[in-house]
Amino acid sequence: MSQPAPALAAGTVGTVETRHLDLPEPVRLDCGRELHPVRVAYETYGALSPRRDNVILVCHALSGDAHAAGLAKAPSGQSTRDGFGAEDRDGAGGRGLGWWDGMIGPGKAFDTDRFFVICTNLLGGCGGTTGPSSTDPATGRPYGPDFPVITVADMVRTQRAFLDALGIERLAAVAGGSLGGMQALQWAVLFPDQVDAVVAIASTHALHPQGVAWNAIARDSIMRDPAWQGGHYYGTGRAPHAGMGVARMVGHVTYLSAPALSEKFGRRLQSADALRYTIIEPEFEVESYLRHQADSFVKRFDANTYLYTSRALTYFDLARQHGGGSLSPALEGVRARTLLIAFSSDWLYPPSASREIEQALRALGKPVEFEVIEAPYGHDCFLLEEARQTPIIRRFLAQDGAGTTSRKRSS
Amino acid sequence: MSQPAPALAAGTVGTVETRHLDLPEPVRLDCGRELHPVRVAYETYGALSPRRDNVILVCHALSGDAHAAGLAKAPSGQSTRDGFGAEDRDGAGGRGLGWWDGMIGPGKAFDTDRFFVICTNLLGGCGGTTGPSSTDPATGRPYGPDFPVITVADMVRTQRAFLDALGIERLAAVAGGSLGGMQALQWAVLFPDQVDAVVAIASTHALHPQGVAWNAIARDSIMRDPAWQGGHYYGTGRAPHAGMGVARMVGHVTYLSAPALSEKFGRRLQSADALRYTIIEPEFEVESYLRHQADSFVKRFDANTYLYTSRALTYFDLARQHGGGSLSPALEGVRARTLLIAFSSDWLYPPSASREIEQALRALGKPVEFEVIEAPYGHDCFLLEEARQTPIIRRFLAQDGAGTTSRKRSS
Repeated sequence: MSQPAPALAAGTVGTVETRHLDLPEPVRLDCGRELHPVRVAYETYGALSPRRDNVILVCHALSGDAHAAGLAKAPSGQSTRDGFGAEDRDGAGGRGLGWWDGMIGPGKAFDTDRFFVICTNLLGGCGGTTGPSSTDPATGRPYGPDFPVITVADMVRTQRAFLDALGIERLAAVAGGSLGGMQALQWAVLFPDQVDAVVAIASTHALHPQGVAWNAIARDSIMRDPAWQGGHYYGTGRAPHAGMGVARMVGHVTYLSAPALSEKFGRRLQSADALRYTIIEPEFEVESYLRHQADSFVKRFDANTYLYTSRALTYFDLARQHGGGSLSPALEGVRARTLLIAFSSDWLYPPSASREIEQALRALGKPVEFEVIEAPYGHDCFLLEEARQTPIIRRFLAQDGAGTTSRKRSS
Repeated sequence: MSQPAPALAAGTVGTVETRHLDLPEPVRLDCGRELHPVRVAYETYGALSPRRDNVILVCHALSGDAHAAGLAKAPSGQSTRDGFGAEDRDGAGGRGLGWWDGMIGPGKAFDTDRFFVICTNLLGGCGGTTGPSSTDPATGRPYGPDFPVITVADMVRTQRAFLDALGIERLAAVAGGSLGGMQALQWAVLFPDQVDAVVAIASTHALHPQGVAWNAIARDSIMRDPAWQGGHYYGTGRAPHAGMGVARMVGHVTYLSAPALSEKFGRRLQSADALRYTIIEPEFEVESYLRHQADSFVKRFDANTYLYTSRALTYFDLARQHGGGSLSPALEGVRARTLLIAFSSDWLYPPSASREIEQALRALGKPVEFEVIEAPYGHDCFLLEEARQTPIIRRFLAQDGAGTTSRKRSS
């Protein structure tokens, strides 16, 4: 490396490397197709207990990857933590830190002194797991738009097959925020006998219509970019960076709250508080910030993965998957204890959605806890408010007997 | 006309025609440049009183034009009322109805039995007033991106020059919603001795940072479209319809409220409640609706006008124009009575912004009324909730002596 490695904070899982595993069998998808071969990129933190009963699966959100914690062994120069605020905290030294590093490690919310934490890149991803940029065995070229349309359940079935290949049958917990929380909920529904606990943060059982709209706009922006080329842009030397940038900017504003933007940027100008009378250049600080977010995102993320993942999260609808109407049919088989966390200022995945899940579980007599954290940073709180989530999650996980045979943190 | 003219509702101003007036002098702009020639497109409704003291200037918002009321004499086939809900109410017969037809007419909020109502297309517009699609006398070609960057104050100065040309010195009232409300406020600040009353609806003294962000995204979407061609797309056979469509969709969602989208569309699918597993096609009704809005907008609106108008409304900042800090210096010269109306569900121009104006005026001892209407349709309420605004505005305008010499409504 040309730069010295940043000093690792106390409680870190250290330097980690993303590994890959090829699933032995095809993955059957909700759309009716099968996918084969399927490779899964993953990282692990902590040690597997002899009884293999201390596994926590952490699921990532739309723009994440398998690198959830620690410092990447071969930093790409692109942090997976490019969310609001992350840049403030990490600085240059933070490049390569996992997207939930504050939550995973010795003594942290997902305590690697106790648990063996696994994070996989989701099906359809661009972080090493098979996705639209992978080679289609039928053609020898990247799938592009011929990649099958996938669902959250398909992501979870892929994770199930991956854990089978690792010889892991049960999960002490499955956890995630946003789309990651959808996967966690889907786990409890699809594999009720194999999940002891669910931690679904800033998530929902079905994205509300405004969220569906934002996602449709983001996808349209990508697909309207001529450089998208109907999805067959790989190897052409062009990619839909313009449209992806707009998609990212839309997403970014929906991840934040209006008060957070006011607090961080106000109406401050770029240029010494004097208008420059320009249409083309950013004039307000918030305009410049958004362009920066767009530019850095398009360098590290595949547009087709964005399309497929965005589609999957709009499809997710536990009630519809189980006949429509109510959540009860979907949740009646759940055997896991559930912890729901939401943030007061999150208008994309509002607390009301988590409340609906809580009430449905409670009506079915299922163990459930729901915490609303008062915090101003909108949906991004699930990445930013790690310190306030930590005691809630630690207490919730401590109620369980899982992992008691593994080593305890001594502090 | 190939179709029969729709029947006109009671209280209509009837069939109207947009007229044009060339200003005799150049317009001096905030950016330091002058614009000449300047043509202004306008419509009038009602009759000018002998004392010329019954004039109400109505100012339109981002996507509007001079056709505020009545039925266009030569319908273009594109209604200016393409907002949420307007399509529901107007149906095919409503094409060509003015964007505030419910507010302007005999016995309506802006009562043409009493007032002479004028609406001009704003400076920079694409509805007949000089804007970026107009011919630049220096080159003989459309201005495009060489059009000067304009401000809300520039729009108001142009209206002032236009009224001078018509021989109208005073305004009994100036009124508008959104960007139109900004113009109304700017009138009271710039020409305090010539405005008796201001009606600023769903507006603000300075767009909040999230609104600045949405506008920046919309503009970036247009400018990133290769068909924009640096703004020189006129006459090339190409226009940035793709980017404009995305801009419109972003705008559209910000004009509505999340509950309104839920109520109107829910998570209903296009296809008999079964997923079709498609990335490219709309799957949810709300997705299809947004595409329709985008497609109809790009047919009737000029992309450069969108850029310039959006920029002007983000620049608008009464406090900054008067030294920063507080609103007081901007408002201390105001002599007009002010009516502010806001809508409870409007998150783009929230009631809190109007409250700030109210408090600043009240602290200065200025006459001000502020009404918050509880209504679910977000910012679009200023176009939709005409019936509930009407008694508030009529009562406010009735307090004034203006127009008492003109004929009264007999009903």
